[in-house]
Amino acid sequence: MSFRAKHLLGIEHLAPDEITTLLDLADSYVDLNRSKSKHSDALAGLTQINMFFENSTRTQASFELAGKRLGADVMNMAMQASSIKKGETLIDTALTLNAMHPDLLVVRHPHSGAVNLLAEKVNCAVLNAGDGYHEHPTQALLDALTIRRAKGRLHRLSVAICGDIAHSRVARSNLILLGKMENRVRLVGPPTLMPSQISEFGVEVYDDMREGLADVDVVMMLRLQKERMDGGFIPSEREYYHRFGLDAEKLSYAKDDAIVMHPGPMNRGVEIDGLIADDINRSVIQEQVEMGVAVRMAAMDLLARNLRAEPKEVLV
Amino acid sequence: MSFRAKHLLGIEHLAPDEITTLLDLADSYVDLNRSKSKHSDALAGLTQINMFFENSTRTQASFELAGKRLGADVMNMAMQASSIKKGETLIDTALTLNAMHPDLLVVRHPHSGAVNLLAEKVNCAVLNAGDGYHEHPTQALLDALTIRRAKGRLHRLSVAICGDIAHSRVARSNLILLGKMENRVRLVGPPTLMPSQISEFGVEVYDDMREGLADVDVVMMLRLQKERMDGGFIPSEREYYHRFGLDAEKLSYAKDDAIVMHPGPMNRGVEIDGLIADDINRSVIQEQVEMGVAVRMAAMDLLARNLRAEPKEVLV
Amino acid sequence: MSFRAKHLLGIEHLAPDEITTLLDLADSYVDLNRSKSKHSDALAGLTQINMFFENSTRTQASFELAGKRLGADVMNMAMQASSIKKGETLIDTALTLNAMHPDLLVVRHPHSGAVNLLAEKVNCAVLNAGDGYHEHPTQALLDALTIRRAKGRLHRLSVAICGDIAHSRVARSNLILLGKMENRVRLVGPPTLMPSQISEFGVEVYDDMREGLADVDVVMMLRLQKERMDGGFIPSEREYYHRFGLDAEKLSYAKDDAIVMHPGPMNRGVEIDGLIADDINRSVIQEQVEMGVAVRMAAMDLLARNLRAEPKEVLV
Repeated sequence: MSFRAKHLLGIEHLAPDEITTLLDLADSYVDLNRSKSKHSDALAGLTQINMFFENSTRTQASFELAGKRLGADVMNMAMQASSIKKGETLIDTALTLNAMHPDLLVVRHPHSGAVNLLAEKVNCAVLNAGDGYHEHPTQALLDALTIRRAKGRLHRLSVAICGDIAHSRVARSNLILLGKMENRVRLVGPPTLMPSQISEFGVEVYDDMREGLADVDVVMMLRLQKERMDGGFIPSEREYYHRFGLDAEKLSYAKDDAIVMHPGPMNRGVEIDGLIADDINRSVIQEQVEMGVAVRMAAMDLLARNLRAEPKEVLV
Repeated sequence: MSFRAKHLLGIEHLAPDEITTLLDLADSYVDLNRSKSKHSDALAGLTQINMFFENSTRTQASFELAGKRLGADVMNMAMQASSIKKGETLIDTALTLNAMHPDLLVVRHPHSGAVNLLAEKVNCAVLNAGDGYHEHPTQALLDALTIRRAKGRLHRLSVAICGDIAHSRVARSNLILLGKMENRVRLVGPPTLMPSQISEFGVEVYDDMREGLADVDVVMMLRLQKERMDGGFIPSEREYYHRFGLDAEKLSYAKDDAIVMHPGPMNRGVEIDGLIADDINRSVIQEQVEMGVAVRMAAMDLLARNLRAEPKEVLV
Repeated sequence: MSFRAKHLLGIEHLAPDEITTLLDLADSYVDLNRSKSKHSDALAGLTQINMFFENSTRTQASFELAGKRLGADVMNMAMQASSIKKGETLIDTALTLNAMHPDLLVVRHPHSGAVNLLAEKVNCAVLNAGDGYHEHPTQALLDALTIRRAKGRLHRLSVAICGDIAHSRVARSNLILLGKMENRVRLVGPPTLMPSQISEFGVEVYDDMREGLADVDVVMMLRLQKERMDGGFIPSEREYYHRFGLDAEKLSYAKDDAIVMHPGPMNRGVEIDGLIADDINRSVIQEQVEMGVAVRMAAMDLLARNLRAEPKEVLV
């Protein structure tokens, strides 16, 4: 087994062999979750705390189920926005939780870098469940597992990531992961929703869906945040759908067996046509959710193994 | 054992022998809950998700405790009203949850029929925890268990259901269950709170409490929703209590050993006199709550047995 | 073992030997929480319900973790302020929960005495997690454990409790506990924040920090509720910090090895200087949080042992 990380803060810290190790273990958890008795003791005796400073019903549910199925004692903390006005308070909150001796701390936070900061202050394993525009590593890992299962491999694929790239930690983590595994990634979307420094990733950029999707193996749509429209990034939902919404006609430019992905929740009729989303021959959107639980089980299991292997340090 | 249902969507789908099977098993769970170690492994390895689209502290608590005591991995989902604006979204939410492989899905929803719709989209057992004005099957089952334990039987009893019948899924499920078990049911309340099509149930209707309660074995009061008063259905709380509130004088028309029921939470001094509610010789209101946990344990246990007996189908 | 209490409603009902028994057991739970497998079956088969009528992220989390680590089935009830308008409703809520057969009921309530009232109505063990200005016994016990571990004893110590004494249940429970264990307690703070009847406790009172802290072993700061400033109790944050905020200069009047405590969450720069709070040679604030989980595990464990030893009475 080769998974050396102490935390799961971002894809950028993982080596390709660590990604493969994690996905291999996740495959076995897919089998467990599909079986009639979906419970193991991999995390028995350990405490998992979910700290969500941003609402996210589905990601929190996925982590919660993952921990409970592995036998951890799981606790959700509702972190109101009011309690995080000052940077100081985040640290105090972290230290307080740390004093309760969690083993796994799952954190979502609206500010990029907040989760990394927090990880420096605690002596448990920290999992980033999304921080600002920075990273969302378990989303990229579940997308990778979905692609690998659908395509039979996770390298030398052509993947188009489409939509609001600039504000998407999902795009960012996927871009890094797909690059590490030697795939070719294209970004497709309106120039106003493209990050300013794209060149660093060495990817191709398109503002035309038909050109961008030409011959790709994977079409990865992103969720359009409604507030982008108010912010002047795009003119209207209808105009956006016309130019960048995925429908059958635009999809026809991709390979015949190209799969369609979306991290959810979807805005049907805005970034994707409902018929495409529901087409079981093309869409793997439900499978992404399924892989999410398995990938989080694998991530927590691997981090817990490393935790147990370490000599116990008590910072408190 | 004869309990063949895949879901528990409403009393209307249950045969009398299934009701009896469920109540018999619930009796044994009453004993477990009263014992010093109230935990079993009947649902070990299974995942229960509670999706409440309407707030209901007590019903959700009852289902949550039932699942935890049976060893399930239980997760509550807080479904904000905002996320269910479109019918589509309910389905997308259902499909997302289904992809996480729950075994038991407990759903409360403000729209009649929403839970049935959802059950068609998932491949786990669905329990209706109340949908609009339609059904609330576990409430009727816990009422039935309470009556059976108090009266020694669940047939040939005379039962008066009193109050806001028109808007009550509790009344509707009870009416169906009590009819199936061959009891005589009367509906008592103001004409403005009676359903338009009563004839289909073949019940007697009264708008006078003294006539309606004459010689009944069971007086089942309903909760009065305050918004009915704004809606013009009834003139005022005081007037309502005067005519339809259960007090000692009105209760004296029922049989000497008649029991008093209320699904809770009570509006003391509106639909029921506090002294009657607290009279341990007549009121079985606390026992209804106790039976609620036991009935939900029995329902989930029976559904889980059917689930395990089936060949595993994976829709995802 | 000598712990005879049925409930943990306040320190005033505990004898010194009971306090010692509880702290001794808590010491062993500190070891468990610091170990790699932090789970026991002390509460297996039992049901713990947390009923918080006031928000308290950290206290609720501490009780929740304590129960889960001891193997209880734990349920949190979100009690909205709206459901407790009438005294009646609290009793009805208590009776409803009681009918679900919890074994341990953890209650926080904004009204002094509400938890005692509730304890009279149920037949399970009740733990007071803070009621109005009355008591917060587990906070005093965790403070006691922290002091005993830092100082090697819990008697003949000189302890200064500083700040808003009048409105603090933390101060009140600590005052009682420290008195019972034969320590010398001083109260330090502005006269407007002192309780009217101090004489009953036989303590010394100071309105000057330097005099009040002179030669003490323990400096226990209290949280300043911001609403006290609006209420005219104190002039301003800045003025308060100048006169009563703990900084290095004021702390220099205490013994060289005096420890600094705070129940959290802290207002840095109001009642305490951030540098003092973070000084690991003086501050035991994080250790207080750690002791909190251990003390709550010990309290619930002891109450559960007494519960199991009793003949089972069923009130429902």
